[in-house]
Amino acid sequence: MRYYPVPESSIQMPDVIKAVRMAFWDHGNGNFKMPPKSYVPLPGGDFRTMPSYLPSLKTAGVKVVNVHPDNRVQGLPTVMGTIILLDPPTGRPVAILNATGLTDLRTGAAAAVATSALAPVKQGTLGMIGAGRQARSGLLAIKEVFGIESVRVWSRSLKTSEHLVVEFPALDITVTSPGHAADSDVLLTTTPSIKPVVMNDWISDGTHINAIGADAPGKQELESILLKRAEVFVDDLEQAIHSGEINVPISSGLLCPDTIRGTLGEVLVGKIQRRSRETVTIFDSTGIAITDLAVASEAVKQGSFIELPFPTG
Amino acid sequence: MRYYPVPESSIQMPDVIKAVRMAFWDHGNGNFKMPPKSYVPLPGGDFRTMPSYLPSLKTAGVKVVNVHPDNRVQGLPTVMGTIILLDPPTGRPVAILNATGLTDLRTGAAAAVATSALAPVKQGTLGMIGAGRQARSGLLAIKEVFGIESVRVWSRSLKTSEHLVVEFPALDITVTSPGHAADSDVLLTTTPSIKPVVMNDWISDGTHINAIGADAPGKQELESILLKRAEVFVDDLEQAIHSGEINVPISSGLLCPDTIRGTLGEVLVGKIQRRSRETVTIFDSTGIAITDLAVASEAVKQGSFIELPFPTG
Repeated sequence: MRYYPVPESSIQMPDVIKAVRMAFWDHGNGNFKMPPKSYVPLPGGDFRTMPSYLPSLKTAGVKVVNVHPDNRVQGLPTVMGTIILLDPPTGRPVAILNATGLTDLRTGAAAAVATSALAPVKQGTLGMIGAGRQARSGLLAIKEVFGIESVRVWSRSLKTSEHLVVEFPALDITVTSPGHAADSDVLLTTTPSIKPVVMNDWISDGTHINAIGADAPGKQELESILLKRAEVFVDDLEQAIHSGEINVPISSGLLCPDTIRGTLGEVLVGKIQRRSRETVTIFDSTGIAITDLAVASEAVKQGSFIELPFPTG
Repeated sequence: MRYYPVPESSIQMPDVIKAVRMAFWDHGNGNFKMPPKSYVPLPGGDFRTMPSYLPSLKTAGVKVVNVHPDNRVQGLPTVMGTIILLDPPTGRPVAILNATGLTDLRTGAAAAVATSALAPVKQGTLGMIGAGRQARSGLLAIKEVFGIESVRVWSRSLKTSEHLVVEFPALDITVTSPGHAADSDVLLTTTPSIKPVVMNDWISDGTHINAIGADAPGKQELESILLKRAEVFVDDLEQAIHSGEINVPISSGLLCPDTIRGTLGEVLVGKIQRRSRETVTIFDSTGIAITDLAVASEAVKQGSFIELPFPTG
C-alpha cells in the first residue's frame, strides 16, 4: 500500500480539469456508483464520508473530509481530507492520499468545467465573492478555460482579497464591493454563508455563476429569487437538494426541485443545454466523490509515495 | 499522522471484548453518531464505508472494508479493512490502521459480549456452523466469557474444520454434522450463506445463537421459523433490517420488525432482558462502526506505528 503525502504537487491544473471533466461525463452517462455523502457532526464541525466507484478508471475509493470553520485559530485548515483507493476486483486498499490540497484542486476544476460548458462567452470579467482557498483554486482553474480580462473580488476579510492581488500579479485584480464583483461575466462564490450575500439585482443577464460555498444543510450564498430566475444546473441532484445552494430555498418551498434543469454531466454528454445566451446560469457545486476519485487516480500516476506494509495474514 | 500496519498484535482479546462492550453500552444509551453503513458494488464483491463518532472515547473515524468471496483463489483474504481516525475537535486525521485483523477481533468480541449478556448458562457446549476467520475469532472471544466444555464444528470445507482442531489442541473439538453442531448451549454461525443452513428442529430450548454470517441483503443462515420462535436481539436495528440475519424474512414478510426484542446495547444497559431461560435467543450481528472505532482507539494506545507526513499548507 502506498501513501502519498503531497499528491497535489504531481498533477498540473489542466490534468485536474481533464480528470474532473471525465468524471462528470461518466456521471452524465450514469456510469458510476456513488452513495450519498454522509455527514457526522463533531464538536466544532463535522466530517463527511464520500465513497464511490468509477468503472471507466477501474478505481474505487473513499474520501474522508472534515469541515471545522474555526480551525484557523489553531493554525489548521478548515478542511482536511484523506482518500483511500481500492483495487475494484479484489477490494484491496492500494493507496492512501493526503487529500487536503487535492480537494481544493478538484473543487476549482469543477467550476472551470462548468464555466466552459455553460458560460455564453469565452472571455470577460471574473467576479469573486470570497477569497479563501476555494476561491484561489477556482481562479487557478477558471483561467485555464476562460480568458480573464479582469477580476473583481470581494471578501469579508480585506486581507484575504489583497493576498490574491499579490499572488497573481499577472492578473488585473480589483478589490471591490460585492455588488460590483457580482456584475461580471462569470461569478465564483465560495463563502460559507448561511444567508444570501449575492443579490438578484446585481446580476446581469447572461452571467454564469459557480456557486461553490454551500455544501451543507442551511448554507446559502445567492438570493432565492436569483435561483428562481436562473437556469440551475447541479453536480448531483440528491446532494444538491440535501446540502447545495438550492437546499434552503427548496426546503422552505421557495424553489421547486422540478425547476432544476439537470446536472453538469448531462450538459457535457449533450442531453441538455442552456436555453439562451441571455439567461443567468448557476452551477450548484456540492463536491462529488467521483471527482475526488478521478483526481486521486490521476495524481498517483506520478506522485511521490511512501511504501507501507499491509499484512493480511 | 501515524500508520499502524498490525494493530491487532498490540491488543489482547480481553481488552477487545471490553472495548466492544463499552461501544455497545454507548449504543444502548444513544451516546454515539453512526450513519447507516453504505455499500458500493464492485466486480466480484463490494466495499462498505462505516463512519462513526464516540464522544465517550473522544474519537471519530471511518472503516473502509471490502467483501470479495473469491479472493482466496489469489491468496488474498475475503475481507480487508482500513480505518482512519480523526481528532473530533479539529477533524484532523491522526491515524490510519490496517483493520483486516482488527475486523476479525471485533466481530468475535461482539459474539462474546452477546453470549455473556444473553446465554442462560455460563458453561457448556459451543456449536459452530462455519470454521473460517470469523469462526476462529468468535471461538477465541467466546472462550474468554463462557466455560467451553466441548466444541462441535461443521463447515462446508472439512479441511477448515480440521484446522480448528489442530489450532486449539487444549479444546475438546469434534468435527460433526450441522444438526449435531447446532444442538449446543451456544451456537456461532459464520457462513456467507444465502439460504438457511440451520434448521429450527435442530435447536433446543435455551440455546443462545450468535448469527454472524449475514451482513448483506439476501444473506440468511437460520431457518425463518427459528427467527419467529426465538427472541431476536440485533446490534443495530436499521443495519439488521437492511442486511442482517433478519433481512430476508423481513423483506419477504415472514417476520415483522415489531417482533425484534431490541438491541444488545439495550440489554447491556438494562433496558431489556431475555424473557426466560427456556427461550431461544438470537444475536443478529451485522458489525457496527462504533465497535471498530472503539477497538481501533484501544489498539493505537500500544501499537507500533510509522510516522507519516501530512502537510496541510
